[in-house]
Amino acid sequence: MGKTYNICLDIGGTKVLGAIFDEDGNIVHRLKKKTTSGGNSSENIEELIISVVEEMRQSFGLKKDQLHAISAGAPGVIDSGAGIVLFTPNLPFRDYDIRTPLEERFGVPFHIGNDVNLGVLGEFKYGAARGRKNVVGLFVGTGIGGGLILNGDLFTGTGFKAGECGHIILDPEGPLCGCGQRGCLEAFSSKKGMSAYINQQLSRGRSCMMEGKMANGVFKSKLLKKSLEAGDPVAMEAVDRACHYLAVATGSLINIFSPDMVIYGGGVIEACGGIFMEKILGAVDRYCMTSIRPTVELKQAALGDDSVLYGALALIAN
Amino acid sequence: MGKTYNICLDIGGTKVLGAIFDEDGNIVHRLKKKTTSGGNSSENIEELIISVVEEMRQSFGLKKDQLHAISAGAPGVIDSGAGIVLFTPNLPFRDYDIRTPLEERFGVPFHIGNDVNLGVLGEFKYGAARGRKNVVGLFVGTGIGGGLILNGDLFTGTGFKAGECGHIILDPEGPLCGCGQRGCLEAFSSKKGMSAYINQQLSRGRSCMMEGKMANGVFKSKLLKKSLEAGDPVAMEAVDRACHYLAVATGSLINIFSPDMVIYGGGVIEACGGIFMEKILGAVDRYCMTSIRPTVELKQAALGDDSVLYGALALIAN
Repeated sequence: MGKTYNICLDIGGTKVLGAIFDEDGNIVHRLKKKTTSGGNSSENIEELIISVVEEMRQSFGLKKDQLHAISAGAPGVIDSGAGIVLFTPNLPFRDYDIRTPLEERFGVPFHIGNDVNLGVLGEFKYGAARGRKNVVGLFVGTGIGGGLILNGDLFTGTGFKAGECGHIILDPEGPLCGCGQRGCLEAFSSKKGMSAYINQQLSRGRSCMMEGKMANGVFKSKLLKKSLEAGDPVAMEAVDRACHYLAVATGSLINIFSPDMVIYGGGVIEACGGIFMEKILGAVDRYCMTSIRPTVELKQAALGDDSVLYGALALIAN
Repeated sequence: MGKTYNICLDIGGTKVLGAIFDEDGNIVHRLKKKTTSGGNSSENIEELIISVVEEMRQSFGLKKDQLHAISAGAPGVIDSGAGIVLFTPNLPFRDYDIRTPLEERFGVPFHIGNDVNLGVLGEFKYGAARGRKNVVGLFVGTGIGGGLILNGDLFTGTGFKAGECGHIILDPEGPLCGCGQRGCLEAFSSKKGMSAYINQQLSRGRSCMMEGKMANGVFKSKLLKKSLEAGDPVAMEAVDRACHYLAVATGSLINIFSPDMVIYGGGVIEACGGIFMEKILGAVDRYCMTSIRPTVELKQAALGDDSVLYGALALIAN
C-alpha cells in the first residue's frame, strides 16, 4: 500500500479538528479536541499538532509509510508557500518556521495556511464553489473572516494579509470593532457584533431569551438559532441589522471583484444559514451594480465545519 | 527600419488622445482631438480610430511597415483578450468585435482595454507603481474609476467587470449615484459628487466662486484648483468631504487587498493632487488595519493624462 492518506487539521482558539483523508478525498477518520491552552508559546502549537497527528495515526492504525502529507489551517498571517507563521492572534510568536521541525518529525511534507483562506479554498475545490473562477468568501463566526479566490487561485496579497473582508468599513462613526476601527462589517454582523446589539437592548430593559446564556457576552450560534425559531424580537432585530450590513458589504465586494460567486460560511451561517441567506439575497440587489449582478451567485457554504479541513487538503494537492 | 512604432489611443467621451511611441517607449508624436460624436454607432468608434490613426501616421510620416501595433483604451466593459467591446456607456453597441476589422484595415495587431484599467496598468508598468505587485488604482474624474493589479497582472474579474472601486458603498442611505445606488464613493468624491454638494450649498444661498461657471452642473478640475487656491470655503468643504470618503474607501480597499500601493489619478488628482493626497494620507490610518498599513504606500499617479496611453502600450507588450 502506497502513501495514500493525508492528515488535515483545523486549529482554532478553543478546539482542534482533525481528519484523515483517503486518496479519493473522503474523510475516513476524525478527531475533535478541546484546547484551552491554544498554546502559550510557539512550542505549544507545534506540540499540539504533533500530539493530534500521533493520536489520529494510532487510533486509525496508520503506518508511517501510509502517510502522504500533513496540512493545517490556523488563524493569523501565514506564509503558506514557505510554511512560516508570520503572526497569529493570542500567541506570542512571529516569523516562526513551523514547517521545518514538523517535516523533520514526521518525514512527510507539512503545509499550513490561514484558516479562513483555507475555508474558502475548501469550498472552491470541494464544496459549493466548485468550478467557479472568482469567489469571495465571508465566514461569519465570533468575528468575520474573508477569503478570495481570483482567477482560480487563492489571493493572499502583499505580506499574506489580504482578504480582511470583515473589516470593510460600513459606517466610519459606527460601533468600535475588535480591530480598533469603527463600523466594520464585523462590528455589526459577527457574533460579537450581534451580541453587542443584544446586550445594548438588554441594558435598556428589554428582554431577550439569550439573557444570562452568553459566555463573555457573546452567544453561541445554536442559541441564536433557537432564539430565531422562537421568534425572539431582539434576536430578530440583531439578525436583521447583521444581514443589512452583510448585504451592503456584499454589494461593495461584487462591485469591486465582479466575482462569479459570493459564498457565506462559518458557525453562524452553518446554524442559521436559511434565514441569513434569504435576508441577504432579498437586499443585495440594492447594493450592487445592475450590470454585474446577473453574473454573480450568492450561496451558502456546503462543507460546514469541514471547510477548513478540505482547504488544508487542497493545499496538499496544489 | 523595422516595425518599431506603436500607435496608442485614449478614447474618451469628449476627446481622443493619440500618441506614437518609439521602440524605447518614448512618445514621439501626439494628437488631441475633440469628438462631440463619441460615436453614435459601432461604426463611428471604428471610423474614429481609423481617422485618428491615419491622421497621426500622415502627420508623423510613418510608413506602413514601420507600424508594429495599435492599442486603445475606451470606457466600458471590454474583453481585452479577444478585442471585443462588450458594453460601452452612451454607445448602442454590445458584444462588438472591434479587433477584426481594424486588424484587417491596418495589417497590424490591434489591442483594446477599459480605459481606467489601462490607466492603472500604465502606472504599474511605466509610472508611479513600477516594481510593485499588488496595486489598487482610484481615478477621480467626472466619475471614479478603479483598476486592480493583483500578483502583477491586471485583474478583470468575471465578465471583465471588476474594479468598480468607485462604487464601494459608504452610506447606504447617502446621495444617489449615477449607477443607481446610493452613497457610492463616486457620489461623494467625484467631480459630479463634489459639484452636487456645491450646488446644494448654492441653492441654500451660500456663495462659491464656481457659481455660474459649471457646465451641466459639473465643474472643471482647473476651476476646482483655482477655487482651492483662492481659499473658497464651499469648495474647500466639498474637497474635505470628498477626501474623507476617499480615505474611508481606501481603508476598506487596503483591508480587502493588502496591496503594496494605492494610486490616485484622474483629472481631479492631476489638477489638485497635492491637497487631496495630504488629506487622504492624514486620514487613512483611522480606516485601515494597523497590521496592514506598514506595507502599503499611497501615491499620486505619475503619468498624468498619459496614463491610459501608456497602459495601451503595456497591452501591446504583454
